[in-house]
Amino acid sequence: MTASDSAFAPPGTRAEVEEGTAFTPRFDRDGLVACIAVDAHDGRVLMLAHMNAESLARTIATGEAWYWSRSRQELWHKGATSGQIQRVVEMRVDCDQDALLIRVEVGGDGGCCHTGRRACFYRRVVRGADGAVTLEPAGT
Amino acid sequence: MTASDSAFAPPGTRAEVEEGTAFTPRFDRDGLVACIAVDAHDGRVLMLAHMNAESLARTIATGEAWYWSRSRQELWHKGATSGQIQRVVEMRVDCDQDALLIRVEVGGDGGCCHTGRRACFYRRVVRGADGAVTLEPAGT
Repeated sequence: MTASDSAFAPPGTRAEVEEGTAFTPRFDRDGLVACIAVDAHDGRVLMLAHMNAESLARTIATGEAWYWSRSRQELWHKGATSGQIQRVVEMRVDCDQDALLIRVEVGGDGGCCHTGRRACFYRRVVRGADGAVTLEPAGT
Repeated sequence: MTASDSAFAPPGTRAEVEEGTAFTPRFDRDGLVACIAVDAHDGRVLMLAHMNAESLARTIATGEAWYWSRSRQELWHKGATSGQIQRVVEMRVDCDQDALLIRVEVGGDGGCCHTGRRACFYRRVVRGADGAVTLEPAGT
């Protein structure tokens, strides 16, 4: 599904997009918007994923996060198999309406990353004295 | 600049990407990775932007956030004109290395959004009793 056949109206003027009350998500050429999920309890960033119009509509209608899996090219009801359902407490949109932020309560074991960790950002990017850039473990 | 001519090595196996110590950012077909910026002091999500290899390299080298402006199609040293420099306290990468998370200390007036607000996610997406989806102001 692309923006053209979605339930969402196309963006208006810049002023309308930035200051208006109309929700007009700006899908990219693949029909996607980025969505940041943060834990509703402590605000920690859990993951970044993408939604197409259909997954966004389902998320709003059901109150549970649905994404579009770019790797599998399919709708993805987060937690459907793992139990890590993301109940959406609040959804926000950014100034130019091409990014979403959802605050979620996570079901199951409370995690979100397919590697088994609570959140996806479990490694820090560090630059050594020699200028080499590597990763090191960081808490999630 | 695309991934092919960047200073960053290409991704290895899935295990290396997810569990290794090599930083191999996965740039999309436009040569970009998404980057979430959060306030180092309170963890609030400030904005979502994109980096290409050059802006990422500059960010790492200088300790200040550089992005790639998709609208202007140019390198963007955040705060260069507004004073809202983002000093990077920590950078993280996600499991599949296609998203970055930076914790930043913001210069100038402490804001980040071009609309003058502190953060870009200043509107909540709400669904009315009639099913209509609109936006309403929310604190940043």
